[in-house]
Amino acid sequence: MSQPYDIMAFRQAIGPIKSEDNPVLVRQKSRDFYWYSPVLKRELDHVAADIVVTPQNENEVVETLKAAHHLKIPVTPRGSGTGNYGQAMPLAGGIVLNLAEMNKVRAIRPGRVIAEPGAILAKIDGETRASGQELRMYPSTYATASIGGFVAGGSGGVGSINWGGLRDFGNILRLRVLTMEAAPRALELTGEDLHKAAHAYGTNGIIAEVEMALAAAYDWIDLIVGFDTFEAAASYANTLGEEDGLLTKLITVVAAPVPHDYFLRHRKFLPAGKSVVLIMVAEHALDALRAFNRRYKNAETLFDATLLSAEDRKGLSPNYELSWNHTTLRALRVDPAITYLQALYPFPGQLAAVKRIHDLFGQEVMGHLEFVRFNGKITCFGLPLVRFTTAARLDEIIAIHETMGAPIFNPHRYTLEEGGMKQTDAVQLAFKREADPLGLLNPGKMIAWEDPNFDFSAGRNFLFPGLEERARAAAG
Amino acid sequence: MSQPYDIMAFRQAIGPIKSEDNPVLVRQKSRDFYWYSPVLKRELDHVAADIVVTPQNENEVVETLKAAHHLKIPVTPRGSGTGNYGQAMPLAGGIVLNLAEMNKVRAIRPGRVIAEPGAILAKIDGETRASGQELRMYPSTYATASIGGFVAGGSGGVGSINWGGLRDFGNILRLRVLTMEAAPRALELTGEDLHKAAHAYGTNGIIAEVEMALAAAYDWIDLIVGFDTFEAAASYANTLGEEDGLLTKLITVVAAPVPHDYFLRHRKFLPAGKSVVLIMVAEHALDALRAFNRRYKNAETLFDATLLSAEDRKGLSPNYELSWNHTTLRALRVDPAITYLQALYPFPGQLAAVKRIHDLFGQEVMGHLEFVRFNGKITCFGLPLVRFTTAARLDEIIAIHETMGAPIFNPHRYTLEEGGMKQTDAVQLAFKREADPLGLLNPGKMIAWEDPNFDFSAGRNFLFPGLEERARAAAG
Repeated sequence: MSQPYDIMAFRQAIGPIKSEDNPVLVRQKSRDFYWYSPVLKRELDHVAADIVVTPQNENEVVETLKAAHHLKIPVTPRGSGTGNYGQAMPLAGGIVLNLAEMNKVRAIRPGRVIAEPGAILAKIDGETRASGQELRMYPSTYATASIGGFVAGGSGGVGSINWGGLRDFGNILRLRVLTMEAAPRALELTGEDLHKAAHAYGTNGIIAEVEMALAAAYDWIDLIVGFDTFEAAASYANTLGEEDGLLTKLITVVAAPVPHDYFLRHRKFLPAGKSVVLIMVAEHALDALRAFNRRYKNAETLFDATLLSAEDRKGLSPNYELSWNHTTLRALRVDPAITYLQALYPFPGQLAAVKRIHDLFGQEVMGHLEFVRFNGKITCFGLPLVRFTTAARLDEIIAIHETMGAPIFNPHRYTLEEGGMKQTDAVQLAFKREADPLGLLNPGKMIAWEDPNFDFSAGRNFLFPGLEERARAAAG
Repeated sequence: MSQPYDIMAFRQAIGPIKSEDNPVLVRQKSRDFYWYSPVLKRELDHVAADIVVTPQNENEVVETLKAAHHLKIPVTPRGSGTGNYGQAMPLAGGIVLNLAEMNKVRAIRPGRVIAEPGAILAKIDGETRASGQELRMYPSTYATASIGGFVAGGSGGVGSINWGGLRDFGNILRLRVLTMEAAPRALELTGEDLHKAAHAYGTNGIIAEVEMALAAAYDWIDLIVGFDTFEAAASYANTLGEEDGLLTKLITVVAAPVPHDYFLRHRKFLPAGKSVVLIMVAEHALDALRAFNRRYKNAETLFDATLLSAEDRKGLSPNYELSWNHTTLRALRVDPAITYLQALYPFPGQLAAVKRIHDLFGQEVMGHLEFVRFNGKITCFGLPLVRFTTAARLDEIIAIHETMGAPIFNPHRYTLEEGGMKQTDAVQLAFKREADPLGLLNPGKMIAWEDPNFDFSAGRNFLFPGLEERARAAAG
């Protein structure tokens, strides 16, 4: 079977706009970190686009969309491919719209930065730093992730202990979104309208520019505090999060044996058996943090970046690269049989839920908590590490979490709904009807569009038909 | 009866250090805003020092303390006298140590400012502004209050919605404190030790330098949102406080009829019958706030500083000068029979407690809430306005508040303990034994020192014997 799309006509239509159809290179740009999940690894491994287009400016994006719309070729936007759920993987093939070279920081003002979608988070901070400012929050892939990809496929991260999540009012200030129509329109979304296109995986518009709120920039000091039990570490972390004047950017709890067994470069600081709290604290709050720590007889400072020699610091990654999804990555690199979940332990019962659930699973599910502000309270998300056996057991572990009061945002699903609230997002769906009437943007990721009658409560996974077609085509 | 202190010898001892003994001027510098309280007004009205000393530098403070110690003359430190509980009033006479001319900002660094104690809060912000920074919190007397006085006699204010109170780790970074000994020592207090001298009314050391944490500086926009009921306003304010990404610096609720009846300059914006929420929102969060407001069908934006003509804005004070203790001041100026209380409505029952208590009192106690972060949660303090009849009824109103779950920090008492936790602060007392062994600093304010056997549960007020002696001496 030949390609279902007229790629040759498309190339002709876009003229000099940079593109690439070498299958090896196209395949590289058709993936993200989906392989964190053994389930997605199996389901998505064959996914590849037909062509990668790399526009240099908004006008080239518009020309690309026009041509794709005319020829009815799907378009899947991509930042730098650091997502974990196949967000930027072209399930129905077609075009990967690689926005990595639209990466300029356009303006920096008090409290605001305006950037092109492909701008790398760490690079944005490099430019805002001169004004004493930095991004409010970022994922652990800070060094390589793009701002557009973060907005389209992320939800929060380092800094969420202060500012909540991307979905919260005030964190994203404005999105400029291009529609997928015969004549693409540029829409400026603000306020409530941001929910139309943020965290929509690019299914209902192409983010052409972002305006984000900034926070004050500080030198963040890495500390690691050790405890004899996961429970003691979690309790300390929760109380630290509730210290209103003690400015941190990261409070992560990782249960033994993970730190010693999987944080290889830090191993000499991390005795076996210690559960740890990873902290990023503002330089001017370090003294207060040390005073706070002295209140905890059971807390042992295992690592204090300010007390290390240059020799000792060499080759060590910063704490944020041991946190959030990098915790998973560290473990996976040592033991490929490990995978993970994403849980919310709701306030006010978060510590009790964590204990109950982890006591039940023992070493099959290893504790990893990320403390955040959530609806005005300090609570924690979990990214527990799971010793994977079967997909069925993974589903069982998920079901037990939910029964025990910890909703799971399933990272083993590639759809918005199954990885999220397990229900149709009417706002995003309505916006897709408006901005992508032919359904050409990132097909297969929004169930409500593909299968309006899908029953989220029936306990079966959504399987995008286009994915199967492509698999057959690839095999045939 | 003549003066009990040898002021002449003291003047000789301090030589050229600036001092003043003109009774009219000394009396002026012997008072604060104690007259907000009809109780304190009666008790403290006659209070006056014998002499005011105005040192220009730390060395002159040391010389003053030395001489006072040698001659056993009490010393009461004073910033700019904007306290409300007689904090800086010399109950036993003697020396007022006026620190207003030690007012330099000494250093500004990322996250930190170092200042002399007499530096005015607004002036500090004027100097830190160039680095994009400002004080984390300030009282409504921002324009005139000193940083040393705020640390010694305040507890929080505008900005506490983000950073909690002064007592929280990380807000005060360091205090340089001079002891009252034959050879005064300079102690540098940090971490847990800050609790020794912060909020001690200068009873156990003279604050000679402060180091405070800073926040990012923004243009704060004043909005006033109106509601038909106090309850609706309080509920909106609480939810706004819990918006983790929507940066505000002030969320104040004032019940009808206060806004219309007492905010005279704003009256044309404030219809009778409207309860209001006063907001300071960061310029870059204004759009998000407007989107948030659209979710409230019952919310009416009565005032938006960005939409006013220069003409309309003329003569209007900023929102923070309608908030915290300025709310009381506005009401007092119209109706001198009004006084106030200070209540905490503890999380999570704050809104229910507010409603229960205000439903009970009706128009005798008019609602005024200040939303803050407190132990990691959003809740509110109250500074309700009370139509004063008798001291006995005031005590009854306080008792009813406490019975109904709202602890009162009584602003009608001049002692640390009665205005605070109604128990001995062992840390402050121990520090006074060390730093002021003769008990010469601000006598009469720390009950634990004056009367170690005082029974806080007996329901009687502490009356400082020295206060009576001075009253008799003045009369005799």
